[in-house]
Amino acid sequence: MTVRLIKHAASDADVVFAARVSTQGADSIPAEVLGGSERGLINYLMRERHGSPFEHGSITMYVEAPIFVFREWQRHRIASYNEESARYRELRPTFYLPAVDRKLVQVGKAGAYRFERGTAEQLDIVDSTLVAAYRTAYDAYDQMLAAGIAREIARAALPVGIYSSMYVTMNPRGLMNFLSLRTHREGAAFVSNPQREIEMCAEKVEAIFADLMPVTHAAFEANGRVAP
Amino acid sequence: MTVRLIKHAASDADVVFAARVSTQGADSIPAEVLGGSERGLINYLMRERHGSPFEHGSITMYVEAPIFVFREWQRHRIASYNEESARYRELRPTFYLPAVDRKLVQVGKAGAYRFERGTAEQLDIVDSTLVAAYRTAYDAYDQMLAAGIAREIARAALPVGIYSSMYVTMNPRGLMNFLSLRTHREGAAFVSNPQREIEMCAEKVEAIFADLMPVTHAAFEANGRVAP
Amino acid sequence: MTVRLIKHAASDADVVFAARVSTQGADSIPAEVLGGSERGLINYLMRERHGSPFEHGSITMYVEAPIFVFREWQRHRIASYNEESARYRELRPTFYLPAVDRKLVQVGKAGAYRFERGTAEQLDIVDSTLVAAYRTAYDAYDQMLAAGIAREIARAALPVGIYSSMYVTMNPRGLMNFLSLRTHREGAAFVSNPQREIEMCAEKVEAIFADLMPVTHAAFEANGRVAP
Amino acid sequence: MTVRLIKHAASDADVVFAARVSTQGADSIPAEVLGGSERGLINYLMRERHGSPFEHGSITMYVEAPIFVFREWQRHRIASYNEESARYRELRPTFYLPAVDRKLVQVGKAGAYRFERGTAEQLDIVDSTLVAAYRTAYDAYDQMLAAGIAREIARAALPVGIYSSMYVTMNPRGLMNFLSLRTHREGAAFVSNPQREIEMCAEKVEAIFADLMPVTHAAFEANGRVAP
Repeated sequence: MTVRLIKHAASDADVVFAARVSTQGADSIPAEVLGGSERGLINYLMRERHGSPFEHGSITMYVEAPIFVFREWQRHRIASYNEESARYRELRPTFYLPAVDRKLVQVGKAGAYRFERGTAEQLDIVDSTLVAAYRTAYDAYDQMLAAGIAREIARAALPVGIYSSMYVTMNPRGLMNFLSLRTHREGAAFVSNPQREIEMCAEKVEAIFADLMPVTHAAFEANGRVAP
Repeated sequence: MTVRLIKHAASDADVVFAARVSTQGADSIPAEVLGGSERGLINYLMRERHGSPFEHGSITMYVEAPIFVFREWQRHRIASYNEESARYRELRPTFYLPAVDRKLVQVGKAGAYRFERGTAEQLDIVDSTLVAAYRTAYDAYDQMLAAGIAREIARAALPVGIYSSMYVTMNPRGLMNFLSLRTHREGAAFVSNPQREIEMCAEKVEAIFADLMPVTHAAFEANGRVAP
Repeated sequence: MTVRLIKHAASDADVVFAARVSTQGADSIPAEVLGGSERGLINYLMRERHGSPFEHGSITMYVEAPIFVFREWQRHRIASYNEESARYRELRPTFYLPAVDRKLVQVGKAGAYRFERGTAEQLDIVDSTLVAAYRTAYDAYDQMLAAGIAREIARAALPVGIYSSMYVTMNPRGLMNFLSLRTHREGAAFVSNPQREIEMCAEKVEAIFADLMPVTHAAFEANGRVAP
Repeated sequence: MTVRLIKHAASDADVVFAARVSTQGADSIPAEVLGGSERGLINYLMRERHGSPFEHGSITMYVEAPIFVFREWQRHRIASYNEESARYRELRPTFYLPAVDRKLVQVGKAGAYRFERGTAEQLDIVDSTLVAAYRTAYDAYDQMLAAGIAREIARAALPVGIYSSMYVTMNPRGLMNFLSLRTHREGAAFVSNPQREIEMCAEKVEAIFADLMPVTHAAFEANGRVAP
């Protein structure tokens, strides 16, 4: 999984001027230096879920992940996407294989699943079965393209484990909503159970966010990881 | 492809009362009977792209289509979706095969493609290659499930040609935007070039829409199929 | 304040079929009868904040309220609005006066205000001052219109206490978000402090909602009035 | 009217990398230098209304304008707002008066209005009537505040001609939609008839936009000022 920061207009200071305009009007002058009262204000906004001051900015990232991850990601509607198109280009044969530490076995019932490590044999089965299935699928794709079939038809054979790439832009509020739903944290006010693969992306998104907006991120953490 | 109307609150009359409130305020009494001036009003709103009166309602549909169609559909953000989950249930082995009249060959260059009918041989290749690829993929999926692997991992092998199902709700304005982008009509003010498979769904959506809101649909047609 | 239900497609049963498609696919058949497991499901979705099944429908209301209420209401972006236009029609002289039980005095500091009842004298001042100001403003408006000035200019004199009217359409999820922010309830998970006038509207919206979707409303109440 | 650029992440180059990912995937490397083919691409996207590549960025502005202008502006839902609050602060006595070149007289009928210059007498009436109405309204406001009445009640007397201030953030696509609806240009594909006061703001927004994204702005102009 790749998540790379491309460009942004996002800093803790933006939250402050946007929030202060409600009480100060024209005197809410943007400033880049945050003191204690600014940190307190950001924490207050987060705790009370005054969300709109967290919308003034944007974070654009380049992402590479399997299609089944993109399918979940793109359900977030307060975001902008442009993705590689299997109608306009030939997809490359890059596929997802779980790492050795991926928990492979789902235990429990709907609404209360947990995951456990698989046996060595199970890991082998996943690896060999997926590799074989991916190879067959890509051969079929290649064969149809070689026969002059349109890419948009031939791609029907390709698995959701194939990698795609996209640019995604979110504002900080939408990004926190994404984090709250796509990471699992025991202490969270509302515990989510995302699929591990999108969580791996979300962790990279979170690192970028924490780097750009450390005070906001700390307030998000301190207040139960609830998107404001 | 299946598109079935589930429920709705959508009629031409809604457009009229919503539009008239701007000029009549409290006297904009909803009425179900449309005369000539109501038809003229709807046409005027469409032509001038006064879009908001077309938002007061909802149309909920049940859809069955391949994942590659859902991937395009769900990029429309002014809509609500709930889809079958390959994390929570085992997908059934239903897959997409192009019908005999599907044009298989893409001619021209990016931005100006057109599609032509394939030879009998090409149709054979598509059919036999897809069937074989689908079978191998589903066998791999089955094999992993039988070995106790979680559904959400095993599904990585499944192709984007497999069918999924969802409920989708749109308001009439969002629905017209969907139609304008996902149907190809020569006379349209902005000609779109959707993939044929999503267009097949869009045509069914359009039939439902035309049935529920005939005056609005006629105005959409008469004004270049531009979403207002 | 007036809030009147105009039309809707909204019932508890919609939540059930939309939620069940994730685990049942094509077998998620809409049914209108809700038993214990359906009630349990709705409560589970609410508690866990699985919000999307609450989006499949729409509730259209006709509202009359002062402009300062509309200003707050229309900041809710997941909704559709059509409002009486002071550009296209002459506004009528209907103005807001606080009822005798409206608490007039704000005590405390920013972020922790509370309101207390005013004295009889304060109530008199509000009444007489507002009536005089409204009268002067409307006379000025009338005078400019009589002199042939365009409505859109003359209206600059009109106060935000004047009534306007609109149609608003929300889906159940957006409506619950509106309720959570525009009502004050001591036991809520996130306590809001809306202005009393928009809360008076929100209470009427809530009564309509509770009538249309009693199970969903009960689950909203039971789970801290957090929009899912 | 004041519209001041606060911060942004917006450049023509962003459109290019976002668009090219569909055909180039991982090779769509962001570059800051635009040649002829990049200009051609931006023009093509605009003409064909491929809108999503114009969403990757944000432009944050500080705005001062009368409430009646904010009322129209904030109906644009693909945008983020934080505004001065008359609940949390005392508004200052700054009010809107039309400049001498403002056309004061509306001629024609609904749907086809045009505006003409007023007589010297009409201009006098507007000035003197508005000034008197504003003064009375603000005196009433002051009087209620002096009597200990809460700001949120006292403000009911204030006219929609009073100035407010806000921060607004839009992405380039949303901004172009704003421009297409809030400016009047004879040659436009869809001619809008905004109120002159919001158009004065829109012209300032457009100058900022043209400065930040000159190629995109030129393409917007060249293609009928239709938001893509």
